[in-house]
Amino acid sequence: MPRHELSYPKTAINKVNRYASLAAYDIKTVHSIIAAVPVVHVSFVSEQGLPTILPMIGALGNFANPSADVDEVQDLYIHGYVSARLFRGRETLSVCVSATIVDGLVLALTPFSHNYNYRSAILHGTASAVTDAAEKLYAMERVTSHVLPGRWTGSRIPPTKAELDSTGILKVKITAASPKIHTGGPNEPKEDLANPEVTGRVWTGVVPTWTVHGEPVARGGGRVENVPEYISQALERRNEMGKKEAVDAARVGMEGA
Amino acid sequence: MPRHELSYPKTAINKVNRYASLAAYDIKTVHSIIAAVPVVHVSFVSEQGLPTILPMIGALGNFANPSADVDEVQDLYIHGYVSARLFRGRETLSVCVSATIVDGLVLALTPFSHNYNYRSAILHGTASAVTDAAEKLYAMERVTSHVLPGRWTGSRIPPTKAELDSTGILKVKITAASPKIHTGGPNEPKEDLANPEVTGRVWTGVVPTWTVHGEPVARGGGRVENVPEYISQALERRNEMGKKEAVDAARVGMEGA
Repeated sequence: MPRHELSYPKTAINKVNRYASLAAYDIKTVHSIIAAVPVVHVSFVSEQGLPTILPMIGALGNFANPSADVDEVQDLYIHGYVSARLFRGRETLSVCVSATIVDGLVLALTPFSHNYNYRSAILHGTASAVTDAAEKLYAMERVTSHVLPGRWTGSRIPPTKAELDSTGILKVKITAASPKIHTGGPNEPKEDLANPEVTGRVWTGVVPTWTVHGEPVARGGGRVENVPEYISQALERRNEMGKKEAVDAARVGMEGA
Repeated sequence: MPRHELSYPKTAINKVNRYASLAAYDIKTVHSIIAAVPVVHVSFVSEQGLPTILPMIGALGNFANPSADVDEVQDLYIHGYVSARLFRGRETLSVCVSATIVDGLVLALTPFSHNYNYRSAILHGTASAVTDAAEKLYAMERVTSHVLPGRWTGSRIPPTKAELDSTGILKVKITAASPKIHTGGPNEPKEDLANPEVTGRVWTGVVPTWTVHGEPVARGGGRVENVPEYISQALERRNEMGKKEAVDAARVGMEGA
């Protein structure tokens, strides 16, 4: 695993571009990575000054301009209860959010050059609790649609007042963001490539890796027997997209790929 | 998504048991979750006092007692360069490490009760750079085997001195750890279950979700054409295990499951 992989540069925090000034292409990349992960990892500094991480559901949205394009600035709504004590009397909390997709295992001649193909987005921002009822409803819709597209209207809506009141949603105003993508096969040292014992013995290549959704398992509660089409179609799209990203990443740099 | 899911208790840091005093069962659970994720998320506090996350490769190991069982105390070796500046002159850095596996989408009648089945481990500990050459070699073997079992001996070993010297490995002495697992189907409010319009319209259940490894793509460098058996077997084992965990989680609580 080469030293420069999965190891953000030492100046990561200082060097990242301000989010809003990123090129539209990079904003779109960051957003597409967040949209593709079921869970983001949210880190913040605890009351005791210690680093803390929570895995949470994170969905992008723009309450003021809901029809904003994927390459325009968005907020990140994250779902889950976070103690008010963490805010320590302040209205906002500094957070760092990571979204990571592993697209493949990169198997090289030397252990040193092993690696993953991956797509990663790191966001910095300030989180605050969503208290406005209309915005909370909007955020709940975004979060539910993030779990599965179409599910908001496919479920029992609107939420009751009690449900809205007891749902904790944080809005992260993104202040900086950086995408990082690795594709392709291993980089080999010349010495290994010139060593027939090594090249004749060690298989090298990429194992494409992606997330699949399997056959839905119906549970008690609803009386709907057949899986609705919006569900099966959304799952199929995700399965195809995940496989395509992984296989495409594995083939980058190959002749005729 | 219920308020208690993917939202660690407000006293998470205070309440977690000291790692070494965890029941063997919980230690085993934490270890098995870390062993099953390609990437852990490592958070620490930056020079500026801000939260920061890096996705990194994390592998458990016990250099002093390499044959320690999976339910015994281990260290976490994490691979990747982390700036010495982050240590700010100290020998250790406080870190929080998260490993998360999503086993399924839990689709309930109400958006409020949507959720994931998941397995999550959160570790707290102190990281320090591995400098001893023998320990670094051990850690590189653990990390390579974490990417793919059998790959260490399947690749060109031993690493050269230059490779060893330029590989950055941190060892996390785990001081606290907590596993969190969610399985089964949705919990529905009585009101929804008693509403035939809702139960007659909304499909509920679990979509099992897991990671698959696809057909390996051979790359230039090696001259080995066929994928070695240790690779195909390891990938098959992982694919089967991931599916089994996800489907088993979806069926928890079902009659006859």
